[in-house]
Amino acid sequence: MDEVSRAVINFTRERDWDQFHSPENLAKSITIESGELLECFQWGSNFDKKEVCRELADVINYAILLADKLDVKIEDIVMEKLEENSKKYPVNKSKGNSKKYTEL
Amino acid sequence: MDEVSRAVINFTRERDWDQFHSPENLAKSITIESGELLECFQWGSNFDKKEVCRELADVINYAILLADKLDVKIEDIVMEKLEENSKKYPVNKSKGNSKKYTEL
Amino acid sequence: MDEVSRAVINFTRERDWDQFHSPENLAKSITIESGELLECFQWGSNFDKKEVCRELADVINYAILLADKLDVKIEDIVMEKLEENSKKYPVNKSKGNSKKYTEL
Amino acid sequence: MDEVSRAVINFTRERDWDQFHSPENLAKSITIESGELLECFQWGSNFDKKEVCRELADVINYAILLADKLDVKIEDIVMEKLEENSKKYPVNKSKGNSKKYTEL
Repeated sequence: MDEVSRAVINFTRERDWDQFHSPENLAKSITIESGELLECFQWGSNFDKKEVCRELADVINYAILLADKLDVKIEDIVMEKLEENSKKYPVNKSKGNSKKYTEL
Repeated sequence: MDEVSRAVINFTRERDWDQFHSPENLAKSITIESGELLECFQWGSNFDKKEVCRELADVINYAILLADKLDVKIEDIVMEKLEENSKKYPVNKSKGNSKKYTEL
Repeated sequence: MDEVSRAVINFTRERDWDQFHSPENLAKSITIESGELLECFQWGSNFDKKEVCRELADVINYAILLADKLDVKIEDIVMEKLEENSKKYPVNKSKGNSKKYTEL
Repeated sequence: MDEVSRAVINFTRERDWDQFHSPENLAKSITIESGELLECFQWGSNFDKKEVCRELADVINYAILLADKLDVKIEDIVMEKLEENSKKYPVNKSKGNSKKYTEL
């Protein structure tokens, strides 16, 4: 993943795009790309795997750039969130249950 | 990243949540979480770094689950997309330019 | 607005698209179109008014269809929400303040 | 609808929130609220009608504010888009077909 992150960041640097990549603009970009990902499923659950992978890659691309801009490691923030979620969603309460923690 | 992916997938398995995680539902979840990420910037560019990291982690969490469900590696799909983008956005045309490839 | 709603619903009926318009699919469609609206502002606050109007129209188009599917009037649900919001955001507490009601 | 629009705009004016309502921030707000609408359908097609109406109202609320800020009438932009769409989606080609016009 380190290598991939470097490739993503380097792609941006070569094009001098860093000037556009404020955290706010990257958050917008993640949302825009996730809308395109969702479009793969607009009318139902069938999907074109290749297309879904392309849109998912765009979401992750901007997620890598935002993590870099915030100077955090993706691995660290995901592990921290998992720990937080394990308190919100204890196994015994949430097993087989899709309810939000506020309703558990 | 492999370790983080395993932790995310394991978190879900322990709670028997796999039944809710169709590709379509995961795409919706990525979009929902990216909306919460965007909310950190709703009224301007100032942001609470801790909060942004938490929401970004949620986006990546579902991205990991979707890649797993599609049986692809995040590293692979991002590298493939970078290669595609390098054709859409050649350095000489796109340097310092935020225009979409359709307008370059 | 009644006339516009009828035109939107009729457009759909003529194309026999009602079969695709479950509330869930319409909610996805509203989100997808709002992502396209946001794309008009991806890299900053400058915008192409014509393009913004086109994307905003798409959002409203699906909002009209969802309200119709739910058998509610847009005017009614907006007025009800305003009343609810006026309790969450009393003028004296929220004047000139963009904070969420949970933080007021 | 005119009356509803006036109520929405007045709600904002009373709270002196106009200063936060740049077109960009309103576009973000529409996207954020549509994510909350989508959350009503995160794990499937079942939904709580009351909750869906509340979130849909939030989307429309910001759509009204954005139309006002752009100095256009919702009715006009929707009718213009319908006309445009009727060319992209002629009845004979699109009847009973959910394909995008680019694939028709």
